[in-house]
Order: sequence, then C-alpha cells, then structure tokens
Amino acid sequence: MADFKAPLKDINLALNAVARLPELAAMERFADASEDMVSAILEEAGRVASEVVAPTNWDGDQQGVHLQEGAVICPESFVSAYQQYAEGGWGSLQFDPEYGGQGLPYLLSVPVMELWQAANVSWGLCPLLSQGAVECLSLNASDELKAAYLPQLISGEWAGTMCLTEGNAGSDLSTVRCKAERDGEVYRITGEKVFITWGDQNMTRNIIHLVLARLPDAPAGVRGISLFLVPKYRVDAEGNLGEYNQTHTLSLEHKLGIHGSATCVMGFDNSVGYLVGQENRGLACMFTMMNNARLGVGLQGVAVAERAYQQALNYAQERIQAPAVGYKEAGPIMRHGDVRRMLLTMKALTEAGRALAYDACGSLDFAEHAEDEQRRADEKARAALLTPVVKAWCTENANEVTSLGVQVHGGMGYVEETGAAQYMRDARVLSIYEGTNGIQALDLVGRKVLLDQGAALNRLLAEMRETLNQAGDFAPLAAQLEVAVQGVEASRDGLLQGAQEDPQLAGAIAFNFLMQLGVVAGAWELLRQALACRAAQARGEDDAFLEAKQLTTNFYFAHILPRAMGFADMVQSGSEPVVAMNDAHFASAW
Amino acid sequence: MADFKAPLKDINLALNAVARLPELAAMERFADASEDMVSAILEEAGRVASEVVAPTNWDGDQQGVHLQEGAVICPESFVSAYQQYAEGGWGSLQFDPEYGGQGLPYLLSVPVMELWQAANVSWGLCPLLSQGAVECLSLNASDELKAAYLPQLISGEWAGTMCLTEGNAGSDLSTVRCKAERDGEVYRITGEKVFITWGDQNMTRNIIHLVLARLPDAPAGVRGISLFLVPKYRVDAEGNLGEYNQTHTLSLEHKLGIHGSATCVMGFDNSVGYLVGQENRGLACMFTMMNNARLGVGLQGVAVAERAYQQALNYAQERIQAPAVGYKEAGPIMRHGDVRRMLLTMKALTEAGRALAYDACGSLDFAEHAEDEQRRADEKARAALLTPVVKAWCTENANEVTSLGVQVHGGMGYVEETGAAQYMRDARVLSIYEGTNGIQALDLVGRKVLLDQGAALNRLLAEMRETLNQAGDFAPLAAQLEVAVQGVEASRDGLLQGAQEDPQLAGAIAFNFLMQLGVVAGAWELLRQALACRAAQARGEDDAFLEAKQLTTNFYFAHILPRAMGFADMVQSGSEPVVAMNDAHFASAW
Repeated sequence: MADFKAPLKDINLALNAVARLPELAAMERFADASEDMVSAILEEAGRVASEVVAPTNWDGDQQGVHLQEGAVICPESFVSAYQQYAEGGWGSLQFDPEYGGQGLPYLLSVPVMELWQAANVSWGLCPLLSQGAVECLSLNASDELKAAYLPQLISGEWAGTMCLTEGNAGSDLSTVRCKAERDGEVYRITGEKVFITWGDQNMTRNIIHLVLARLPDAPAGVRGISLFLVPKYRVDAEGNLGEYNQTHTLSLEHKLGIHGSATCVMGFDNSVGYLVGQENRGLACMFTMMNNARLGVGLQGVAVAERAYQQALNYAQERIQAPAVGYKEAGPIMRHGDVRRMLLTMKALTEAGRALAYDACGSLDFAEHAEDEQRRADEKARAALLTPVVKAWCTENANEVTSLGVQVHGGMGYVEETGAAQYMRDARVLSIYEGTNGIQALDLVGRKVLLDQGAALNRLLAEMRETLNQAGDFAPLAAQLEVAVQGVEASRDGLLQGAQEDPQLAGAIAFNFLMQLGVVAGAWELLRQALACRAAQARGEDDAFLEAKQLTTNFYFAHILPRAMGFADMVQSGSEPVVAMNDAHFASAW
Repeated sequence: MADFKAPLKDINLALNAVARLPELAAMERFADASEDMVSAILEEAGRVASEVVAPTNWDGDQQGVHLQEGAVICPESFVSAYQQYAEGGWGSLQFDPEYGGQGLPYLLSVPVMELWQAANVSWGLCPLLSQGAVECLSLNASDELKAAYLPQLISGEWAGTMCLTEGNAGSDLSTVRCKAERDGEVYRITGEKVFITWGDQNMTRNIIHLVLARLPDAPAGVRGISLFLVPKYRVDAEGNLGEYNQTHTLSLEHKLGIHGSATCVMGFDNSVGYLVGQENRGLACMFTMMNNARLGVGLQGVAVAERAYQQALNYAQERIQAPAVGYKEAGPIMRHGDVRRMLLTMKALTEAGRALAYDACGSLDFAEHAEDEQRRADEKARAALLTPVVKAWCTENANEVTSLGVQVHGGMGYVEETGAAQYMRDARVLSIYEGTNGIQALDLVGRKVLLDQGAALNRLLAEMRETLNQAGDFAPLAAQLEVAVQGVEASRDGLLQGAQEDPQLAGAIAFNFLMQLGVVAGAWELLRQALACRAAQARGEDDAFLEAKQLTTNFYFAHILPRAMGFADMVQSGSEPVVAMNDAHFASAW
C-alpha cells in the first residue's frame, strides 16, 4: 500500500486562492492565524496524519471493532493514534478560548480535518462527530452545560456522538419514538437508536451522546422532538466521572466498509439526560450540528478520493506492462492513455471538490465574523446553498474516484490486500449518511433555491461571471464555462417556473440539478486556482504544481465539465419521465 | 433479501424483437427451436435459477470457498445446485450433437446463461468458463482431443478453466513465462498462473485447464505462446480418470466480491499437457474463447444489474417513510421522485444492456449459419464490433446500477445482511476481468473501427437510421436519436482522421468513444423494443409490460441518452488533455 502524503500545496492553494483565508487572517480576532502559524499547523498535521494515523487504516479494516461484554474494542493502534491527536490539541483549533479552544478560523480546521479523514476515515469519524457535538452545544446549550462538557470535548478527552436514527425513523425523523421524561431538573431517556457512529469505544474516558427524543406531552411529528445531552458516565460538579448512565451498546452493524468504525445499536434505559436548547425544538438544534457534519462528510469524500488517487498513482508508476504508444520498451502503465485518463479524472475531481468544500467552509467564518450585517447574511446563505452540493457532489465523486482507483489496479484492485478496494468500500457510506444525497438534493432545490427564489444561487453565479471576466489567457475555458453557467440558469428558471404548477418537479429533477451545479462550480473553482497559479508564475514562482493545476483544469474542462450539459438536459426533461410509471409497470418484466 | 424472479417477458422481447431469434428458428438446422420449445426451456431455466441457484448466492458470499489440504471446498449448496444444472443438461444447449450437445442456437443459451449469473454470479462462473472451454476446443482442438474431452465438458460432468494471467503478465500477455516442453506426443507444463477462476472446486470430478505456455524454442512476445489442455486428472482411452496431473492450487485470493468463487494461484509441475491448435499460435486460439467470454461477462453485468434492481424495487416498495408529494400519509419510499429516478435508471440501463448483449450474441449465430457468405462476414464483424461495447458498457452499467441499488436502501444498503452491497462487490470485478474495460476500448477503436476504417460501425449506424425511419409515434425520440447518431459519426470521423497524425489519440479517447457508442446503441435497442411493444398493442395485446417498456424508453431518452453528448465532447477534446501532464505533475501536490 502506498504511504499517504499530505497534499499541502493543493491545500494551501485552496485556502488562499479560493476560500479567502488571507482575508480572514487579516481580521483582528484571527491575528494568530499568521502565514507562519498556518504553515506550521498544516505541516505538523500532515506529519501526524501520515505517520501516526495513516498506518492505522488497514488495521481498522482488517481487525475491525468488536463488542466485548457490552464494550466496543478498537484496534490498539486507534487508541494510541487518538491519544496523540488529543495530546496535540488537534480538536481545539477553531473553538472558543473560553472553553479551551484556540480561537482560530473554522476554515483552518478544515484541511486538518481532511488530513485525518484521508489518513483513516473510520478513525476520523470520532473527531468529526466530536467537533459536531461541540458546535451544537456551543450554539444551543446552557452556560452550565457548556462549562461542564465543552472543555473535555474540545480537548479531545471525551468524544461526542449524534443519536438521531431509529429503525423506523431514518430520512424521516418525524417518527422518532425514543422517550424522554422529566425528572426534576433532568430528564430520563429510554429507547433505542440505530446507526450510531462510535456509539461506544475505548479511545476516550467518556462519551457524550446527543439524543433526539420525545416528551410525553410533545406534539406529533418533527415539532415534538427534543434534544438531550446523555453522557455515558455521569459527571459531577468537579468534572469527575460518576456512575454509568445506562447507555448500552446492543450490537454492531456488519458493514460494507468503514470496518474500523463502530456503528452501534444503542439502548438508553432511564438514562439521565440534560435538555439542549428548548423542549420540542430539538431538530433545529440538531440541524446546526448536521449542517457542519454535512460539510465534514463532503470533506471525507475529498479525503478518501485523495488517498485513492495517491494509491492508484503509486501503482500506475510501479506496475510494468507492454510498451505504450511512443515507447519501445515495457514501462509503467501510467504511460497508457486510458490509465492517464483515469488518474486525471481522479485528480481533477478531487482537487475541484477540495476547493469547493473549502470555499463553502470559508463562508461560515465570514457568516460569523464579517463586519457588515448584510454580508454575514449573504455568506450564511452562500454556505447554506453550497452545503448540500459539497456533501452530495463530493461524495458522488468519491464513489467514482475510489472505483477508478480499483480499476487502475486491474485485477490487483479486486484483491483486498492491495488496499484500493477498501477506499471504495469506505467511501460508499458517504453518499448515504448525514442525509442521503437524494435528501441533499431536495434540500438544495427546496430550502436553498426555491425558498429564496434563487437569490443566493444568483449571487454565486455572479461570482462565477466575475471570474470569467478576468480569465485572460484562459479565455477559451471561460467561454466554455459561460455556456455552462447559462445552463445552470436555464435549470434554475425551469425549476422556479415549473415548481409552481408541478408539485412533482422539484423531487424529480433535484439530483441532476445538484450534480449540474456541482460540476459547474467545480470548474469555476479550478479556473480560479489556475488563474492564481498563472499569476504566481508571472511573479516568477516556478513549481511543477503551478503547471499541474493548469493542466488539471484543462482536463476538467475537457472531460468533466461536458457532463453538465447532460445533467441540464435531464433537468429540462421535467418530472414526466420520472413519475409516469406506476407500481405495476416497475415489476412487469417477470 | 428479495427472491429472484426470472424477467422472462423482457428476455423474450429482447430475443424476438432485437436479437432475431425468429429468423434463426426458421432455419432448417434450428427446427427444434420452436416457440413452444424456447418457451419451455426459458420457463424451466427460470425456475431452476430462482429456486435452485439463487438461494445459494448468500451462502457463497458469507461462507465463501476455502482451501483444505490443497483442495478447494465450495459451500455445499453450490455442489448440489451444480448437480442439478448438469443433470438438467443446461450446459449442452448450443453445442454440437456429435459430442452430446442439443444443437440449438447459441442465442438461446444466452438468456439461460444470464439467469444463472443473475441467480449467483460466483457459481455461474463455473458454467460460463466451461462453455468457453468447449467453444475453444470445438474450434481449435484435434478430433482426438475433442472426442476425449468435449462430451464430459458439454454434459457438465467436468468443468473448464482459462489459465492466462501470470504475476507479471496481465493485460500484457507477451511476457507469459509458464514453460512447456515436448515429451513424446505430449508436453510437460511447468509454471504458475494467477487469478484462475475456479482453478479447483469440488463440484465436478475433473477440471480441464486451458493453459498458455511457452516452448523452449518459441520466439519472444505474443507469437511465442502456445495453448495446452491440462486436465486435473489424466484421462485414459476409455475416458476413465487416471492419475493426478500435478495441477496445484497454491492459494486463494481474498477478494472484494464473488467470495463464492475460487480465484486460485495455480501451480503446474511437469503436468501433462496436450497442444490445442498449433505451436506458438496459442493466443489466437485463446481469443476465440475470450471473445465469447467477453460477451458472457457483459451478460453477467446485465444479470447482476437485474438482481440488484429487483432487490432495490422490493425494498422501495416495503420501506415506509414520510408522505411523498401528493400523499397525505406515510408510504413506501418508491413514491419519492428521487427514488423513482434511481429505480428507473437501474431498470433502463439493465434492459438496454440486455437487448444490446443479446443482439451481439445473435450475430454470432448468423455469422456461422447465414446462407450468404457476405452476410456471414458482416455479422461476424458486427459481433466483433459489439463485443467490447457489450463487455465494457454493460459492466460499467453494472457498477452504476448495483451502487444505485445500495443507495435506494439508504443506511440499510451499507449493512451487508441486506444483500444489496454484495451485488455491488460482485459486480466490481466485471469491468476488470476478461480484459479491463480500458482494453476493451482499445480493442474497439483499434481492431474494430480503425482497422476497417469504420465499415462495420457504419453498417451499425445505418441499421439505427433504418429504425429511425420507422419510428412513427416515437418521432420525437427518433429525432433525439438522430442527433446522437450524428454525434457518433463525428466521433468516428475525429478518430479516423486524427489517428493518422496523432498516435496518442486512439488510446486517449477510446474509453469515452466506447461509452458514447454504448449509450447510443442502448437507446436504439430500447426504441426497437418500444416499437415492437406498440405494434403488439396495435394487434390487441394488453400487458403492463408493453406500456412499461415504452415508459422505460422515454426515461432512457430523457436521463441516459443525454450522457452521449458529454462523451462526444470528451472524444472531440482529443489527446492533449490526457497526455499533457508529465510524471512530476501527477505527484506535485505534496
């Protein structure tokens, strides 16, 4: 298996040329985020990711996790890697100094998180969910709860989970049945949750579950769900761990991938819970956690794609077969056109996805810290618009890229020991969890486009046009992107106009609408980067990376962007092809 | 897990409206292939596939195969299913009555083979490879060898394998090192082969290996490879099994999927081999086996896609979640537009692939049995043109369809017990073995298009135009297909003109050229079927299937055919985007 190398040059470019880190760093509050500091953080995170975490990836897949007397046991290497992660303070970068955080931009935590996920997506889920829990509590919990739980969550001493799904409540949370009862100042939680990632583990001393449950007098549906903090071990006033809080791991799922991550059926049995936010308003609280988790999952897609690319590239450089066109002797298979096509597709989708994901994350910082109120609102809407695109498009790409990684290996790719297949199996969950990509697409067309009549989308398209106007040497690419932007506008118009008369339209076209926007936005982000690289060359910088980015961009425009018009045609075909068939038709061939 | 149901209505339509079974059945030599006979065969094959073979699929995945004292042990259910397969004479349909075959059209064996593969692709590899061995020996072996081996291979008493690949000789067979030495009238074979499917098993009493090896005085490269028949147990003049022929199973691969199929490292140790065909002409002999095996792999793609579709449809009908648009109460998730989109994509790709695969197979019958010599040559070229398209396009589709099958299941799709993930893991090998899809694409552009300057392709496009001219009510679809056909013509012209000056062109565009042709040909085959269904309705036939086919065709034209223009653009972009990057560029981000 190939070693993992942190792609720091591409990370830096995405931070600086796309996600506007320099603008953030210039803010008073982020004075600590100097260029040197950023560079030191990323270097060290890259080292820990590749030297400490990445070697645990295969352990996780092969040894997996198991349940022993009710407790989840991870591979030993997971425990020691986590220890180093916590000791390094890696979970605290972006959080409030009041609770032990380092007060750096959220954006800076993004590449660091990507590196953990590239190193080991199973292991990386533990930090990812813990950070989600911190975000949720920071925004919604009482000062008392924050004081009692945030410091240890931020330090990484404890971990967090997200307990939403039940057997009959998946994409549709309105039917949550888990029960909460008032018991003095606290609540008692009883019920079962499924698909709980890292519901238990032996990496942290305590685990803080955020659990959706229903009070006895709650209204039916999503407006009757409350959010509770349920610790595995109760915590006393001094922060000492007390009695076991009856959070039982009932079983583990046997999954296609992420074998190194425990996916638990959790049972709560009269467990003490503390209300987060207000009664019956739990779903809104959970959404603050879920939205950032969605960006995190998109980032996981980028990360595992990067890892798969590095593995495939390594194999393509080492595997010797017959002479390629233009060569007389046998040589590495990467000389063959079709192998290059696959590698370039992997590289282009990964880098475009990284830029788009970082860009969306950057908007969250501006949404919080920009001086101007209107700008804060716009950035918030921008992040909200891009979140489902990042989640769904980057994870669809992860499926494609990791599958291409297998393909580059030929027969060896199908053999597990090679490692390529693991990336494909691991990636496959990303388009499912944290809201399936179908749900993301509905979120995009419904809440993010129809609700504001395309206002946020229009601002994004205006940003794209701004780039086109500065395209200089890249005029041919700009012309191609202009057509693609017009295609998005046509899809937008079709959606805005059609959805009024045809209630089926939004659902029928949502996925292809999202994919179209993703492909076009990815092209735009790459073009922005290519322009930055060209500018750097004009300033006299000389690095193969600067050339490579421009060539990757060319490839993307030739091989990926053409997909956009196909998606546009699918969108234009409306709802009829999707809704015309009845149940009997679907099953009529046998 | 959903039961498997033989999709006989779609199979019959593909046989009759696309693959020209009636024309074959009208031939004197196929007088036995009456409508009643065909119908009886398919009904019974469907029953055996769903009742006997399909239940073994999960066994194969979960129990797998193992090596015990040098022998491969299959799940017990595999052995008894195989027994029923052999006793039913299912392996003999299309073969020469002189050796115990039933002399039916090859085309008729195709749906039967598809049913085995849909039932259990791991198990189905054994019949598939045995039939390939029969074809190879029928065409290339001496009468003596045929008499000694064909009857038991055709009856299914023995099985066949295909021993090509070595550790350093995969896509490039020129470096085969396995050694053959003359020893009187026989040869002695020594060496190691990898990735040998069903290299050993306990389903048949003997195993007949077809082995590529090199004589001491053979020229280097592919013109120095000979083909040998190497039985596991030697066979005496009376057909009795004699001594063990030192064909050792050295180890089994640990694979992503097809766990129920033994993928063996085989060692031959001075094993007795019999020359098939002429010395140093082995690769040509093997190609006759490989070509039909490639169609067989395309068919496996259709089969596993069908199975994944049935599983996903079943889940989508049973899984209850929140009310869909237009409904007040919770209901099955298949009411949701995006779930329908996924199911329809699965259905459309599966049915289009089936029609295309059958059509190519039918051409092989006409290539052998048509009266007119020119027609035989044309049909042979037609089958040769379509073979790489069927292999690659149908297996790319299988990856897509089985992955969609997982997606339809949401979180449950990621849990192995559901069964959806197995189809995805099993399917993933299809685009790799029997020549990766990249190799198929090179075969298409090189040997099937450039070599005859597009003649066979032009005839196929003319066939498409003929359908367009008869499109009647389907005129809007015909207009759309006309544009798509023009797109193929543009790609063809670009290839024919460009390849002369640019040696890199063919390899750089091959895959997208193949995908473009596949998508367009699939549209054409569905349109042919839709027309046949409309005609049946005009004759007064009334069946939901007849309507469903037309709706599936509409969906395909709205959601799948638009991909073709994207592929066309990728082809038009030429070799530059693919070849511009150097090795340093690929690895410049870290």
